Amino acid sequence: MSGQKTWSGRFNEPVSELVKKYTGSVDFDQRLAKWDIQGSLAHADMLHQAGVLSEQDLAAIQNGMAEILADIEAGRMAWSLDLEDVHMNIERRLTDKIGDAGKRLHTGRSRNDQVATDIRLWLRDQISGIQHLIRDLQSALVDLAEQNAEVVMPGFTHLQVAQPVSFGHHMLAYVEMLGRDFERMADCRKRVNRMPLGAAALAGTTYPIRRETTAALLGFEQICQNSLDAVSDRDFAVEFTAAASLVMVHLSRLSEELIVWMSPRFGFIDIADRFCTGSSIMPQKKNPDVPELVRGKSGRVIGHLTALLMLMKAQPLAYNKDNQEDKEPLFDTVDTLIDTLRIYADMMRGVTVKPENMRAAVMQGFATATDLADYLVKKGMPFRDSHEVVALAVRHADQAGVDLSDLPIGVLRGFSDLIAEDVYDVLTPEGSLNARNHLGGTAPEQVRFQVQRWRKLLV
Amino acid sequence: MSGQKTWSGRFNEPVSELVKKYTGSVDFDQRLAKWDIQGSLAHADMLHQAGVLSEQDLAAIQNGMAEILADIEAGRMAWSLDLEDVHMNIERRLTDKIGDAGKRLHTGRSRNDQVATDIRLWLRDQISGIQHLIRDLQSALVDLAEQNAEVVMPGFTHLQVAQPVSFGHHMLAYVEMLGRDFERMADCRKRVNRMPLGAAALAGTTYPIRRETTAALLGFEQICQNSLDAVSDRDFAVEFTAAASLVMVHLSRLSEELIVWMSPRFGFIDIADRFCTGSSIMPQKKNPDVPELVRGKSGRVIGHLTALLMLMKAQPLAYNKDNQEDKEPLFDTVDTLIDTLRIYADMMRGVTVKPENMRAAVMQGFATATDLADYLVKKGMPFRDSHEVVALAVRHADQAGVDLSDLPIGVLRGFSDLIAEDVYDVLTPEGSLNARNHLGGTAPEQVRFQVQRWRKLLV
Amino acid sequence: MSGQKTWSGRFNEPVSELVKKYTGSVDFDQRLAKWDIQGSLAHADMLHQAGVLSEQDLAAIQNGMAEILADIEAGRMAWSLDLEDVHMNIERRLTDKIGDAGKRLHTGRSRNDQVATDIRLWLRDQISGIQHLIRDLQSALVDLAEQNAEVVMPGFTHLQVAQPVSFGHHMLAYVEMLGRDFERMADCRKRVNRMPLGAAALAGTTYPIRRETTAALLGFEQICQNSLDAVSDRDFAVEFTAAASLVMVHLSRLSEELIVWMSPRFGFIDIADRFCTGSSIMPQKKNPDVPELVRGKSGRVIGHLTALLMLMKAQPLAYNKDNQEDKEPLFDTVDTLIDTLRIYADMMRGVTVKPENMRAAVMQGFATATDLADYLVKKGMPFRDSHEVVALAVRHADQAGVDLSDLPIGVLRGFSDLIAEDVYDVLTPEGSLNARNHLGGTAPEQVRFQVQRWRKLLV
Amino acid sequence: MSGQKTWSGRFNEPVSELVKKYTGSVDFDQRLAKWDIQGSLAHADMLHQAGVLSEQDLAAIQNGMAEILADIEAGRMAWSLDLEDVHMNIERRLTDKIGDAGKRLHTGRSRNDQVATDIRLWLRDQISGIQHLIRDLQSALVDLAEQNAEVVMPGFTHLQVAQPVSFGHHMLAYVEMLGRDFERMADCRKRVNRMPLGAAALAGTTYPIRRETTAALLGFEQICQNSLDAVSDRDFAVEFTAAASLVMVHLSRLSEELIVWMSPRFGFIDIADRFCTGSSIMPQKKNPDVPELVRGKSGRVIGHLTALLMLMKAQPLAYNKDNQEDKEPLFDTVDTLIDTLRIYADMMRGVTVKPENMRAAVMQGFATATDLADYLVKKGMPFRDSHEVVALAVRHADQAGVDLSDLPIGVLRGFSDLIAEDVYDVLTPEGSLNARNHLGGTAPEQVRFQVQRWRKLLV
Repeated sequence: MSGQKTWSGRFNEPVSELVKKYTGSVDFDQRLAKWDIQGSLAHADMLHQAGVLSEQDLAAIQNGMAEILADIEAGRMAWSLDLEDVHMNIERRLTDKIGDAGKRLHTGRSRNDQVATDIRLWLRDQISGIQHLIRDLQSALVDLAEQNAEVVMPGFTHLQVAQPVSFGHHMLAYVEMLGRDFERMADCRKRVNRMPLGAAALAGTTYPIRRETTAALLGFEQICQNSLDAVSDRDFAVEFTAAASLVMVHLSRLSEELIVWMSPRFGFIDIADRFCTGSSIMPQKKNPDVPELVRGKSGRVIGHLTALLMLMKAQPLAYNKDNQEDKEPLFDTVDTLIDTLRIYADMMRGVTVKPENMRAAVMQGFATATDLADYLVKKGMPFRDSHEVVALAVRHADQAGVDLSDLPIGVLRGFSDLIAEDVYDVLTPEGSLNARNHLGGTAPEQVRFQVQRWRKLLV
Repeated sequence: MSGQKTWSGRFNEPVSELVKKYTGSVDFDQRLAKWDIQGSLAHADMLHQAGVLSEQDLAAIQNGMAEILADIEAGRMAWSLDLEDVHMNIERRLTDKIGDAGKRLHTGRSRNDQVATDIRLWLRDQISGIQHLIRDLQSALVDLAEQNAEVVMPGFTHLQVAQPVSFGHHMLAYVEMLGRDFERMADCRKRVNRMPLGAAALAGTTYPIRRETTAALLGFEQICQNSLDAVSDRDFAVEFTAAASLVMVHLSRLSEELIVWMSPRFGFIDIADRFCTGSSIMPQKKNPDVPELVRGKSGRVIGHLTALLMLMKAQPLAYNKDNQEDKEPLFDTVDTLIDTLRIYADMMRGVTVKPENMRAAVMQGFATATDLADYLVKKGMPFRDSHEVVALAVRHADQAGVDLSDLPIGVLRGFSDLIAEDVYDVLTPEGSLNARNHLGGTAPEQVRFQVQRWRKLLV
Repeated sequence: MSGQKTWSGRFNEPVSELVKKYTGSVDFDQRLAKWDIQGSLAHADMLHQAGVLSEQDLAAIQNGMAEILADIEAGRMAWSLDLEDVHMNIERRLTDKIGDAGKRLHTGRSRNDQVATDIRLWLRDQISGIQHLIRDLQSALVDLAEQNAEVVMPGFTHLQVAQPVSFGHHMLAYVEMLGRDFERMADCRKRVNRMPLGAAALAGTTYPIRRETTAALLGFEQICQNSLDAVSDRDFAVEFTAAASLVMVHLSRLSEELIVWMSPRFGFIDIADRFCTGSSIMPQKKNPDVPELVRGKSGRVIGHLTALLMLMKAQPLAYNKDNQEDKEPLFDTVDTLIDTLRIYADMMRGVTVKPENMRAAVMQGFATATDLADYLVKKGMPFRDSHEVVALAVRHADQAGVDLSDLPIGVLRGFSDLIAEDVYDVLTPEGSLNARNHLGGTAPEQVRFQVQRWRKLLV
Repeated sequence: MSGQKTWSGRFNEPVSELVKKYTGSVDFDQRLAKWDIQGSLAHADMLHQAGVLSEQDLAAIQNGMAEILADIEAGRMAWSLDLEDVHMNIERRLTDKIGDAGKRLHTGRSRNDQVATDIRLWLRDQISGIQHLIRDLQSALVDLAEQNAEVVMPGFTHLQVAQPVSFGHHMLAYVEMLGRDFERMADCRKRVNRMPLGAAALAGTTYPIRRETTAALLGFEQICQNSLDAVSDRDFAVEFTAAASLVMVHLSRLSEELIVWMSPRFGFIDIADRFCTGSSIMPQKKNPDVPELVRGKSGRVIGHLTALLMLMKAQPLAYNKDNQEDKEPLFDTVDTLIDTLRIYADMMRGVTVKPENMRAAVMQGFATATDLADYLVKKGMPFRDSHEVVALAVRHADQAGVDLSDLPIGVLRGFSDLIAEDVYDVLTPEGSLNARNHLGGTAPEQVRFQVQRWRKLLV
């Protein structure tokens, strides 16, 4: 096919280089270097305790690794694609530095259990960081909730005005979601924090290794109990990415709301300028870029979840090269989540609330209709009947272009003679809000109670 | 567009009926009836305790519901699409039976918190059942592991022969995976088992409800602390489906192995006839239908996970009709998972192991090459060097068409004079197996240890 | 595990029945019956022409099938799970009716090529129907566009007011999307409309079949050229579901807009009552249920796409039982798409437009700022400089709480002395609209041009 | 939260920098530079023809852009995150070089239509390249098919031996799949190759632009007919990624087969060393890394498809910042697909076929049982009856541990006296193969016919 040759001209590497690049992982797995060294040092220590590695060899390995770590942190490490991955790069460097002792480090392990250990050590740290960031974002939301406990906004269902709610109460809904996210991260971390090292290639090793020792040195809570499972398991990556997907879904929901609330027809809030951009063509624009990107990035993380699940589907035991594909989706999920949580906490601290616009919106949708129905029930009418009565009153007010609270008592009594002057107490937004004063309800008193509850949990 | 009219002829219902069908849910949510009644009874009980519902009304509701439940169980309930969903169908039936008391049942709640409660009650029960089924499948696998602790098969990496492993050890790898699945179900169940009831439409209610009372009556561990979150949250459905996806991925992996193992070139196992089918054209066929379907159904469950995540993406608070779409994926996930687990446990009890074929396969891939390398290391050679020596020996044996253990001592010593007569002890599959005798290793002794460990957990 | 036995009590069928149900497909594939018979009749005709089937046998088969078809249409067919699938059910019934001739029908084919043929025949018809429905929805949107060519609404980017657009123009954007959907369905249909029959189980058959004959009888455009591919290919199901996903994504976007536009803060449109529902608790509510469900159902279809792709991943050739799992996602995709398109066309015909609210919104976001910038450019200022000038003018008007068109000429000239009295012509929404009078622009004249273009295509 | 501050220490950038990084795109969109310049040059040319841009300005822009392109190709361009994206970076550089003329380039367009144009121009070129690579891979497979037209291997269904097939025929199945992939790319390219330029921000522009002129200069086949659609449409990215997913699924299937075939129990093929790697611990290993990675990477591309669909779900018109998230999944899909196709074509040319092992496998599964059934039918027995007879014969041979062709005539006649000496002609693999000599069948003659057919298409 002659056309092909021309086309090939656009590729800047011959195929053999392509194979190297296609199968190599050092471009992306070098970020595991610190954790790879951490694992190697514990492994060497254990080998020494088990009598497999001499004291001199151990010391040489420790000194060599200290130098390598310093090199890496100083950006002096030259990663080579010829050495495939982070493990071989570090081991070769070690052997160049300390000779045969470096060659003895790999005794009783394999890259299969080594890489599984590295990722778990790394992910364990990332999850801890993510948990802190979740707490920080919750903290920003709790502050907003406290400041706005009394601010009335329309609570929507179906994006139609339903009932008045406290803006603080609305913020606390996201605190709850993030609270579950925190729990899921903690549950996931338990299963991440188990040690595969000792599984070797797939079957364990013939050396007298002491897995409890290595696990203690590395702070693992448990030890993987089956070598085949240890090297082939990527559940933890899937579970983490699923938990991350839910965090992103929650933030996509809040983002959607921020975008709608910042639209001029709503005008409920404003977002600080540094989270927004203008337009190259429309001089008047101030666009909520950050929430829009977060909404978009939720798809990105969920895409990674799909990728990881598909990756594992129908893989026979034990290790297959497919598993090398676990890293990039996992890395990008962690990066996206960390960046998003950081920026979100800061952004929420830059939200300006516009109570007057919220209140105007409350008055535009018969938000206290339910309160009128409840009022009638308390006077003795069955709920389903009062629902009917109020529907008629709403239709009347709608046609008149006024709120229920604007109807004169005479008109209201035309719908039911159970209605008396005290009805106006329940028809104001504030009356409606305060009346929902039970655990989980929107009354400002409940909002403050929840703020206090969360303050304790967030310390 | 005249063509349209012709085409419309194929549709057997006018659009108004289509709207009803499109928006109605009773076709699929009627399976929640039992849990809907359970929730209503507790709600009524609480309303009575709170002084909102009279004793007579409560008694009427209890009697009416008992009759309705009996009707449903006997198949006498006529579900009506005109009444949209399971809730309205039951409430109407109740009101038909007991009059105004039935209309008072809905006091202080809304369908928004009612449906969220129903699904949680239902899913809580399903998870318990799934946990039992996981345990049962683990039990079947542990039995297989015990019976086959000494059976040697080739352990594969990259589907190439790697090292000998115990077939029992291989089975235990899946017991571990299922163990994590069990844990995840338990963690998920905690978050399912929280009560949204009391959130009403979205903001709570003006009635003096006692949510702790209802929660205690229904056995909920916690109460949703924010009404907006309570009605809009579907995290639990996503989390459950993610956990279910992992179970299915694990079983897709075992299925892949069973299919490969039953292929005549492998011939490692046979599956009992009742899990297989023949061919309509090829008289000799015996096809492993069940594992193939399980492999295929893993995609189905993961598809539901995608659907649920996409459903929730960017939904503003609080309740939106979108959420009605949570049920079918969730129901089908539960059904698929329960059927799959049940059939799998039974199928694994019908697996026949063929040790002679497994052993023949072990002898075909230089499975003990690592053992030779380890042997040399123990005699003083650095690991990386011994790896080189053995690679040469393997190449020699490969060209000669024999296993390493078939090479005469003289030939072996040609590769390294550290090799002595005792080398043959490590070159047999059994020697290799027994040498990996540490926690998580493949030695039969370790397999039996793990069998005992699991027996205790599975009681 | 004694607990298991108790639990098992909840299952209402013994495992052998479960295997039958798990592996059988007649519950869902019976909907293919009509197309299965169509394929069988063509196959029999061809066998007769090829001299494999006698004239009497052919006649018997034709008569028998006519009876069976009548039975099915009259609901008299008793489908049996013992006979696994639609094919075996029909064949058995045929043999019961006509004896040995029925047994000869399966000559030269297999269920593998038979089911592939059935699905393609069925899907081909469904796609034609879907194409008609797309055209019908486009037609409804073109009507709306024509009626509202002059109606000014704010065009949004980032949900911020950007520039005035015609509501008709906005509707036409969706006509374009659906136009691409129509094309994709047509492209997909080409690849659906190829005949696998003749591939038999996987390798072809030893009978002297004439595939061109069968293809002609069935109206297939092409014949699958490789038997292994013919029985294992499910590309067409994936491609169709991907095309369907895009249709649903488009409708999810329009749904999102309808929901926002119907929210009282916007109030741009109203949707006819029969597409909305009320609330069980809030008497004033009118909820846009249909668009919300459509938005939710987009996830459902995309979930099916994920399921199908995962199903096919890494399947070895040729037919595997996994493929039975293609049907339910495909069927549900077709059903969802057909229902959604039908209901959408009707719903769009029930949309009421509220021009005054749209115009009010235009005046609230400096929608003509770009027009002022363009005005300055035309007077000689470089674009990037005019952008700066207008930004300052907008800031001034914003602080004064007025629109740009409300600023006196003196004030405007303070920003640039290029500004003259004619500036007010470009600062009105109508001026802005009419000025964008080029192919694809929002000027009413262009809208009418596009309406005419589409009218011709939609005939 | 004091813990937070400590944790924050691990982040190496302050939040304001994070916002810049989070919202900027120049890190990844700089790869569009060449196409961005191409689009700008055509836009400038058109503006000049329309009388909007002077001859001097046009010349200055052309010269400036030529320099910038040279700078970029020479790696001399310093991309700045402060300038957000590729467009602003290039425009600023241009203005630095040529002054006011550079500021006039953006007249009559917006970044919204500019970026949409860039991606389409870029993707159009990538698709052309991908189509060439598909053809090249098909060509490699056709070569293999031709060389192995007569090589008999077991055709599998359910991974059980079904019937003998030609290895060449098996290769051609993938040529067919790739043929459909080629078609889908061509269909997709039609819809990519439409010009959004002229849509400006969302509504078109007030300048007298000539879109037909720009489209002709850029080689676009069509012009987007609606400005709102033009800037918000990302269908083409989704459609391309869906088409790419199917290519990857096809290659995942071939990869699965290569991996199984290279497993020692099969030993059907060998893959050239440069596509395989060894083990860090097991000296004897040769692992098929490339097919394993391809199998894994299929999930990666499908993950991107999920991400893009989720990205677009429920986005209101017109442009939203979410859309910036389209690039990374799209770029990675293109890169993965191009690398995979290139490496696959080369790898298939490095496959060694082992006919003797394939033939041995054919003899191990009663592959000619169907042939015996067909033989009986041709002698007058109804198909369903002959199926029964052969099943009994297979059971007998299986118990005797021999193939059907090994049974003496006397034994065979015991199952049916229709059997005569000529039965042995149909019981050999070669006889079976040659008997399936119809369009799409596995007979070597048909394989050669298809090879010729494809040779013509691949020229």
